[in-house]
Amino acid sequence: MGVVDSFLAKIEKKEVVIGVIGLGYVGLPLAVTFARKGVKVLGFEKWDKRAAQVNEASNYIGDVKDEDLMLVVKETKKFAATTDFSRLKECDAIMICVPTPLDKFKKPDMSFIESSSVDIGRNMKKGTLVSLESTTYPTTTEDFMKPIIERESGMKEGVDFWICFSPERVDPGNHNYKTENTPKVVGGLGPDAQKIAMGVYGLAIQNLHGVSSPRAAEMVKILENTYRLVNISLVNELALLAGKMDINIWEVIEAAKTKPYGFQAFYPGPGIGGHCIPLDPFYLEYIAKGINFDLTMINTAGNINNLMPYRMMNKIAFALNRHCKALNGSKVLFIGVAYKPDIDDPRESPALLVMEQVAKKGALVSYHDPYIPRVKDEHGHEWVGVELSDRSIAEADCVVFTTNHSCLDVDWIVRMAKLVVDTRNAVKRVHIEDSKVFKL
Amino acid sequence: MGVVDSFLAKIEKKEVVIGVIGLGYVGLPLAVTFARKGVKVLGFEKWDKRAAQVNEASNYIGDVKDEDLMLVVKETKKFAATTDFSRLKECDAIMICVPTPLDKFKKPDMSFIESSSVDIGRNMKKGTLVSLESTTYPTTTEDFMKPIIERESGMKEGVDFWICFSPERVDPGNHNYKTENTPKVVGGLGPDAQKIAMGVYGLAIQNLHGVSSPRAAEMVKILENTYRLVNISLVNELALLAGKMDINIWEVIEAAKTKPYGFQAFYPGPGIGGHCIPLDPFYLEYIAKGINFDLTMINTAGNINNLMPYRMMNKIAFALNRHCKALNGSKVLFIGVAYKPDIDDPRESPALLVMEQVAKKGALVSYHDPYIPRVKDEHGHEWVGVELSDRSIAEADCVVFTTNHSCLDVDWIVRMAKLVVDTRNAVKRVHIEDSKVFKL
Repeated sequence: MGVVDSFLAKIEKKEVVIGVIGLGYVGLPLAVTFARKGVKVLGFEKWDKRAAQVNEASNYIGDVKDEDLMLVVKETKKFAATTDFSRLKECDAIMICVPTPLDKFKKPDMSFIESSSVDIGRNMKKGTLVSLESTTYPTTTEDFMKPIIERESGMKEGVDFWICFSPERVDPGNHNYKTENTPKVVGGLGPDAQKIAMGVYGLAIQNLHGVSSPRAAEMVKILENTYRLVNISLVNELALLAGKMDINIWEVIEAAKTKPYGFQAFYPGPGIGGHCIPLDPFYLEYIAKGINFDLTMINTAGNINNLMPYRMMNKIAFALNRHCKALNGSKVLFIGVAYKPDIDDPRESPALLVMEQVAKKGALVSYHDPYIPRVKDEHGHEWVGVELSDRSIAEADCVVFTTNHSCLDVDWIVRMAKLVVDTRNAVKRVHIEDSKVFKL
Repeated sequence: MGVVDSFLAKIEKKEVVIGVIGLGYVGLPLAVTFARKGVKVLGFEKWDKRAAQVNEASNYIGDVKDEDLMLVVKETKKFAATTDFSRLKECDAIMICVPTPLDKFKKPDMSFIESSSVDIGRNMKKGTLVSLESTTYPTTTEDFMKPIIERESGMKEGVDFWICFSPERVDPGNHNYKTENTPKVVGGLGPDAQKIAMGVYGLAIQNLHGVSSPRAAEMVKILENTYRLVNISLVNELALLAGKMDINIWEVIEAAKTKPYGFQAFYPGPGIGGHCIPLDPFYLEYIAKGINFDLTMINTAGNINNLMPYRMMNKIAFALNRHCKALNGSKVLFIGVAYKPDIDDPRESPALLVMEQVAKKGALVSYHDPYIPRVKDEHGHEWVGVELSDRSIAEADCVVFTTNHSCLDVDWIVRMAKLVVDTRNAVKRVHIEDSKVFKL
């Protein structure tokens, strides 16, 4: 039996061991999903505190159920975490779920993929499948990851090991679609890699969609999130115009949604947050620049998005101006620093950017978020949330809705507040503005 | 009983007479839809040939069924057309379905709305509802149409007559959604107008969605089509990049479509056509400029779209170049001039723009379209289609797919052709290019 067939036979018998590098919001759900299907999973973490937490079955990811983690770690023992990367040699398939941030010049920071590739190259056994899940620019799997693994291992891709790209599609807080039931795109390099990758992922994921190459799979994820960036930016720009024309953009969007074909609703806000949409399109912009290609749509959308926090600062300043107050010296209370409703994740949160700008202009800034008691901004400054009370609301010169968590008692907040800037349509009854409430 | 209540009572008894101005692809289906519900409809047309055609029940709009027109004109006699605009006084509700083109400087040409408003003002009786359906920039109904009607009639809006905006959502060739079952957005000026407008439209349309003002309703239609322009432009730009990176953009789109939330597929092509998407966003850009607001997303999307025909010309030139041929003197056969598949409408067709550019460079251009035997370009030059045959295909130095009509025998065309440029993914088996076929 050839190496490919024996791998497939092993898959058939569920005897493969899966390695997951990076146990964050992508890796942990993925590991638990495989383990729940009875597949043995080893989780690799550089951060020993996190590895220990996993091994205590102490959950830290909202999309993972506590009882599922408990089950696979403590009962079936199908899942364990380790900081010992030499154990990568125990794995048949290794999935890389590490972050790919952008540096401040919007250049992709490939250091986590690089170090994972080095770890894999130095430790893996022959006949391993390596799958990259981290969002990155097209060609990364073939032109960046593969050469590092070959160099470090002395092995040959397509003969001694196989590679594929299979983008994570985790949508934190989505109650309908989790790792298991979200269709997964799989792009192996060559037919052998594809057969093996489809087999491995098929052990845990309900629907797979194969594409012809890793680069096509890389492009899929970028297209999905570029689509979102562009549409949110479009609606942000239209929202600013609509406000000037006495049109309530949220009413317009609700009405457009009644079109039964050819429309998908996006909503305005103080900017774009999270780990994907503000970043992914710029991976593509980066690689495109390398071949002298300007992505004007992404660039324009990025500009609009980057300006939104400043525009929100202006909104707050001009709302205070109505009360004959300056930003300088005014108390501004922000409500919500999570980047979307009902989650506890402040990554790339536009609220933080607005807070920072407003504070720079001399305002006394505080925030409340029911899910985030303290938060660090990009300069490392730690903000500590305040509790909402009649008094804390009434003391603020301006209250700003930046995340529309569904648990917030909006009516009470508005009643208590002196002045409200609403960037999220939290106060539905107000058209564009009234004497107290100003909408984006 | 007040005037509003007596109007509502008349609606209740289906005794209202509807006037429809403009019997084109919007007005004719609308008129027939009301008439089929047993409401009396008068169609107003400046073009006497078209009025005569209607009165002979001779159908000229693909989305209207011949038998429906026959039924309401000849049998129930609920619908008749006229060129006599003085008969507007017979109508209780008048719907304006005239075109709103852009001039070559992308300035909205309001002359048809203007002349309709004059006709209405001079002829309508007291107590009429006037509804504008033509796509236009927000504020048109209140700030452009209303003053003309008031001036010409000497009547007062809100007292002697009412106005609303209710955007047409006709999607030619859509087999699932016709006028009757496509939800309709209705924005009356003030509560009386809204009550009456909802009542009138409710006689024929299954689902109505009321908004708070005509300007909100105007914005709805612009948002819907701006969304499409922006997304098609985005995917066109990504397609050009993908081609350079050896990525098949259509494969990527199909894979992205497997994401069960947060994505809607748009496809690349040689540009954007039809009567809506290339125009509507620029109405908004026009009015935004008037208040010093630059719509950068629309502007960027428009630029990409405008460049597509030139990029397609380059594609054709470089495909011919592989065969050591210049555009100048080469025979180029275009297949499809309709702006989308399976319809007979060449309005704003990007194919015509490509044909024009290629002809300018000295190519001998011909075209075939199974639904469009002859077509005029924007300079008034008439093109006459050729039949497809083994010979007509083989004689061309390059065959260009510009519309993917589903009836085309693509395999045969490719087999017979010397060279193919495929802007629509008609030739599915080819990845990006092979020795004969070059994709966008």
